[in-house]
Amino acid sequence: MTSVEELKLRVRELENELIKCKQKRCTAMCAEEPADNNHPHHRPRIDKMSAEVKIRTFTVAVVGVGGVGSVTAEMLTRCGIGKLILFDYDKVELANMNRLFFQPHQAGLSKVEAAEHTLRTINPDVQFETHNYNITTMDNFAHFMDRISHGALQDGKAVDLVLSCVDNFEARMAINTACNELSQIWMESGVSENAVSGHIQLIIPGETACFACAPPLVVAANIDEKTLKREGVCAASLPTTMGVVAGILVQNVLKYLLKFGTVSHYLGYNAMQDFFPTMAMKANPTCDDRHCRKQQDVYKKKEAERPKKVVEQAVEEEVVHEENDWGIELVSEQTDQELQAASGPVPDLPEGITVAYTIPDKETGTSEGETVEETEQSLEELMAQMRTM
Amino acid sequence: MTSVEELKLRVRELENELIKCKQKRCTAMCAEEPADNNHPHHRPRIDKMSAEVKIRTFTVAVVGVGGVGSVTAEMLTRCGIGKLILFDYDKVELANMNRLFFQPHQAGLSKVEAAEHTLRTINPDVQFETHNYNITTMDNFAHFMDRISHGALQDGKAVDLVLSCVDNFEARMAINTACNELSQIWMESGVSENAVSGHIQLIIPGETACFACAPPLVVAANIDEKTLKREGVCAASLPTTMGVVAGILVQNVLKYLLKFGTVSHYLGYNAMQDFFPTMAMKANPTCDDRHCRKQQDVYKKKEAERPKKVVEQAVEEEVVHEENDWGIELVSEQTDQELQAASGPVPDLPEGITVAYTIPDKETGTSEGETVEETEQSLEELMAQMRTM
Repeated sequence: MTSVEELKLRVRELENELIKCKQKRCTAMCAEEPADNNHPHHRPRIDKMSAEVKIRTFTVAVVGVGGVGSVTAEMLTRCGIGKLILFDYDKVELANMNRLFFQPHQAGLSKVEAAEHTLRTINPDVQFETHNYNITTMDNFAHFMDRISHGALQDGKAVDLVLSCVDNFEARMAINTACNELSQIWMESGVSENAVSGHIQLIIPGETACFACAPPLVVAANIDEKTLKREGVCAASLPTTMGVVAGILVQNVLKYLLKFGTVSHYLGYNAMQDFFPTMAMKANPTCDDRHCRKQQDVYKKKEAERPKKVVEQAVEEEVVHEENDWGIELVSEQTDQELQAASGPVPDLPEGITVAYTIPDKETGTSEGETVEETEQSLEELMAQMRTM
Repeated sequence: MTSVEELKLRVRELENELIKCKQKRCTAMCAEEPADNNHPHHRPRIDKMSAEVKIRTFTVAVVGVGGVGSVTAEMLTRCGIGKLILFDYDKVELANMNRLFFQPHQAGLSKVEAAEHTLRTINPDVQFETHNYNITTMDNFAHFMDRISHGALQDGKAVDLVLSCVDNFEARMAINTACNELSQIWMESGVSENAVSGHIQLIIPGETACFACAPPLVVAANIDEKTLKREGVCAASLPTTMGVVAGILVQNVLKYLLKFGTVSHYLGYNAMQDFFPTMAMKANPTCDDRHCRKQQDVYKKKEAERPKKVVEQAVEEEVVHEENDWGIELVSEQTDQELQAASGPVPDLPEGITVAYTIPDKETGTSEGETVEETEQSLEELMAQMRTM
């Protein structure tokens, strides 16, 4: 029989245990809960920055929240960006832990959800909009177009910049198509499969080469993957390379938005030799993308209408790139041939830059169906194993 | 009066509440508590890597766990380093949130404690040793020397590499003195005060220039700070620059430890122009540091004793640096003059590299007393304000 005294004792025990549990939870949850917007020391720092730079008025879309995209979003959040729109359809896996940003306890969450949670904690003043879908499917693509053209802080306006941090050709082409149609300036980034090289590229529709103007370029790692694997570096998983690429990407975002320094048109990173080639490429007049060709016409018209003084200034700006030892410009006449040889190497590239891959066959490269979540199986296994812990 | 039924009901309520609380805590705590070493998916990934690369056999000391050091430690942790020894005497402040790594809820904790907590969560297989002190005071310096010479995973051995991620001259000189005496190879890193340039440097005592051989060098930002501040970039607080410097630092650590690629002797980063100068500097025979001069003798003797074939190979290795467009070598004859002009500019530096600052006057530059924690006051204010939230 349970006596009243025994029961009262049990109630007191449980109450104490519950208090302790809640206290512990509070400590652990501090990083999990959105911080108070009136946080005394957090705000002034960010306000001080924004008062000067207006960084908080800008909206940036980050497509792909993986090894590069997550760090990119964190850097922008810590710089006090106004709004971030994140797109990704992947889930966090424990296998991602050899990259920066995500933590083991986030395994199983969608990347956009996990990222938003962490980023909100870091800077509650940033506005977040997340989309947990694959932008390459028909419906999602239409929604993606809508969000980049209407998702800015100022209602109904286009975002200030789109950042491509995806890891495949199809997604890059989707971003390229959308940005050409919307005349949306964007930056592309990439890390090679062997993880020892990467690049960033600025794409101004109609002005610089788009992703369909010429085969995508990468920095040659100058080492074959077998050698590298024998040396033992785990391929495609160096937080160092991803950190450097995200760093140079966001640095160029800041330079572009806040108008300081020289924004690189193309900057490569070869980790083996610590070699950073730069170059610039003009749009291809015979580009496959009709919106690219249309934007080229718009750009030419705008250039012709510009007062002479401004045009001169623009020429001076281009000289900045030519002064750089690695800067070369492929004139538009040459890109005709490039297009013809779209699956071959691009001529006259600076030392260390090569073609990333040949453009996939169009029959196999369409993107209308649902993309299967490849890691679904292992994730379920993983979750089951976690539950038993 | 409380009836038995009411008490039983209360016990059930409390038990349920406690279960819920513990469940929530578990989810939230996963990242906070050291993960189970037998975690099914975490281990294999790291084991697979370590089996190939032996990264887990290495011990690295990181001095300074701020903007660059914290990211450096995170990258090494995610790469599966064997052991990290962290030195810092600062506390996390909310003002640090415009750099990577630390989170608002960690404000008030010592940086080494906060870092260890996060890093253990990310990779529980790494061994951590943390020292919450200023290495430049007499007692701490002796302990620092002891830990870098005996702190490796293999008991009693020296660490494989010391990384300087500090932000002041005094601490760099302390590391330099210790490493010269112990013949300990180390890498130095730095970010300029205006946050738009940085550098890394490899120091092999007796072989390459130590920190006392010549005035420290930096990459010229090519813009005066006033202009920059008017443009509005918050000085000394760009997570981008810190991320890039940490990335190139740890990439070179991996190349050095795992013997792949070319380890840079000096690599600069000018964010304004995306310019990355490299160079190499030999040790100065008239260096002020007697241990440096002693290590130079040891090195010369070792070089002379080397079989000819190996010497040839070493020469070939140097050619790699000379092939680089930016690589120059200051021959030892020139460094005599440099030392005389220690507070002036160093001659024959590659484009974009200048002297960091003049070497402080020795009377004011001694380091035997306790260093006052500058931010103590504001931190207490901050904590008081946090308590009221």
